[in-house]
Amino acid sequence: MATVSPTPLLKDELDIVIPTIRNLDFLEMWRPFFQPYHLIIVQDGDPSKVIKVPEGFDYELYNRNDINRILGPKASCISFKDSACRCFGYMVSKKKYIYTIDDDCFVAKDPSGKDINALEQHIKNLLCPSTPFFFNTLYDPYRDGADFVRGYPFSLREGVPTAVSHGLWLNIPDYDAPTQLVKPLERNTRYVDAVMTIPKGTLFPMCGMNLGFNRDLIGPAMYFGLMGDGQPIGRYDDMWAGWCIKVICDHLGLGVKTGLPYIWHSKASNPFVNLKKEYKGIYWQEELIPFFQSVTLPKDCTTVQKCYIEISKQVKAKLGKVDDYFNKLADAMVTWIEAWDELNPSGAKSAELPNGAAK
Amino acid sequence: MATVSPTPLLKDELDIVIPTIRNLDFLEMWRPFFQPYHLIIVQDGDPSKVIKVPEGFDYELYNRNDINRILGPKASCISFKDSACRCFGYMVSKKKYIYTIDDDCFVAKDPSGKDINALEQHIKNLLCPSTPFFFNTLYDPYRDGADFVRGYPFSLREGVPTAVSHGLWLNIPDYDAPTQLVKPLERNTRYVDAVMTIPKGTLFPMCGMNLGFNRDLIGPAMYFGLMGDGQPIGRYDDMWAGWCIKVICDHLGLGVKTGLPYIWHSKASNPFVNLKKEYKGIYWQEELIPFFQSVTLPKDCTTVQKCYIEISKQVKAKLGKVDDYFNKLADAMVTWIEAWDELNPSGAKSAELPNGAAK
Repeated sequence: MATVSPTPLLKDELDIVIPTIRNLDFLEMWRPFFQPYHLIIVQDGDPSKVIKVPEGFDYELYNRNDINRILGPKASCISFKDSACRCFGYMVSKKKYIYTIDDDCFVAKDPSGKDINALEQHIKNLLCPSTPFFFNTLYDPYRDGADFVRGYPFSLREGVPTAVSHGLWLNIPDYDAPTQLVKPLERNTRYVDAVMTIPKGTLFPMCGMNLGFNRDLIGPAMYFGLMGDGQPIGRYDDMWAGWCIKVICDHLGLGVKTGLPYIWHSKASNPFVNLKKEYKGIYWQEELIPFFQSVTLPKDCTTVQKCYIEISKQVKAKLGKVDDYFNKLADAMVTWIEAWDELNPSGAKSAELPNGAAK
Repeated sequence: MATVSPTPLLKDELDIVIPTIRNLDFLEMWRPFFQPYHLIIVQDGDPSKVIKVPEGFDYELYNRNDINRILGPKASCISFKDSACRCFGYMVSKKKYIYTIDDDCFVAKDPSGKDINALEQHIKNLLCPSTPFFFNTLYDPYRDGADFVRGYPFSLREGVPTAVSHGLWLNIPDYDAPTQLVKPLERNTRYVDAVMTIPKGTLFPMCGMNLGFNRDLIGPAMYFGLMGDGQPIGRYDDMWAGWCIKVICDHLGLGVKTGLPYIWHSKASNPFVNLKKEYKGIYWQEELIPFFQSVTLPKDCTTVQKCYIEISKQVKAKLGKVDDYFNKLADAMVTWIEAWDELNPSGAKSAELPNGAAK
């Protein structure tokens, strides 16, 4: 208990969501940082398997039977046998903030050798504004020892609310299967001491391994799609969510940050298995990126839900011809929003806030 | 001589441009890195003053009399009593690459304590491609130990030619006068080990203190405007150039990088003097940024010169009403291009290349 921070930030306003198929021994290493928080564990695969959680953690756990029971027919929008199932945890949470982490991610060390409290850095990122409209060459202008540089318009220095904090990984980088195959020994050893806002109009590859977000601001768009069991594709769950949330954040005037904190990604997934999951995504993404780059949302899309439903329509209209999978996905996006609103009845009202805040 | 690198990169293809009003003692510290290269010194202020250059450097020096003699009436486009005069050096150079540095910038040390060869890093930045169309979360994908991450479209991995490398500053950060006044003691001590491409469509505040560029690709747009003596504004020379080059690079499919290398910026300029120079810029920039964000260049603008002339027309049409200064500036932009083409008669032809390379 002595190592537990005495006043953890947002203790009662943040849930940690962990998708898993195994015992959560990795939590031992995170105990000093995670123990004060509530965990939502989404058990993937065989629901009869018992997942052991180390003593002393406060958690709720959902397996596939729970998901089916809670969502009924709408459970079809939650992926099975894929870590995309984690987004069920976002939906059942009642907190304002979510941090999600993979169970093969350990505590990294900063260059001074100190353990990095990844969660604390995500919270800092989420609680201070973003600057999507103009690039600051000294990176996050709100950090200690930094500011806006000469030539940065003063009218933009207030920034906008931050919706997403995308953290990075030391050791095993988040490469696709072809890159894994070509560079099996590559390790990320470069600690880049920066947090930055991804500019408005720029898409990025969002990885779900080490991710924080403001559920009130962007939660309904954090859908990880249809992946894994029965689907033609895997490993694009977080990418899909990343493209959707970025387009919506740009439209609503919300910020997306990337950079610190790092976690230690312990083991590379099998590149051959990954190739099988990814190969359709690798050519589909050549059409998906131009699609998302050209999505425009009408002015009356003033809530995340409205934006998301509008994107689902455009997905059906424009990507349905790429593959019938996108018709299914567009339908699942609608189901997801229906399920979200069912479990979060006041959501539609509170979701009007971000637009107001960002105008 | 023992410390001089045996095979300096681009030795005969790069000029170092230094604007100054004093003896160039600061070059002693740069000797190991700069001595193999040719220097173009642009002497500002009183032309009768003799500027001392340390022994052993290969240089040409231009004072105001030289500028007037070489450019005749077109010399009116070159600023006087302002470091904006440096752009005359870009014009008279016959090399493919330019590095420009202020005379109050010293050699910085990396976190291991090693002297940073800023020029070498700029050359690396300029010689490897940029990635303006999609954000790579591990920063420069071409660096050792990095690559494109999962979800990065393969069709974009070839990148585009890099036109500009914007380096940063340790110690005294490049703040405007109000920020200098509010934070007189702030020092930049954070070494961020990253180089990144500024995404297409995003403007940034380009500082001329530590800047490399490919003169063949973007030279004619590197005009530092009308500043200083007889002008209502100062300290916006590099900003102006940065907004113009970014819009043109975006149009022609060229890349702009920022980040490494750092130099050690030794002394802060006087914030009271700066405030006097800057105050009009501080409110004008609130109109300039939206202007540059909305500039679109027609398809037949296939050379830097054509792009630049088109921007000058839009400046006159849209910013002339902000202040008559912008009418003068628009005219000076045209004069600059005329002078550039006079001194670089083959320029118009070679300038067709970037567009071809980037299509």
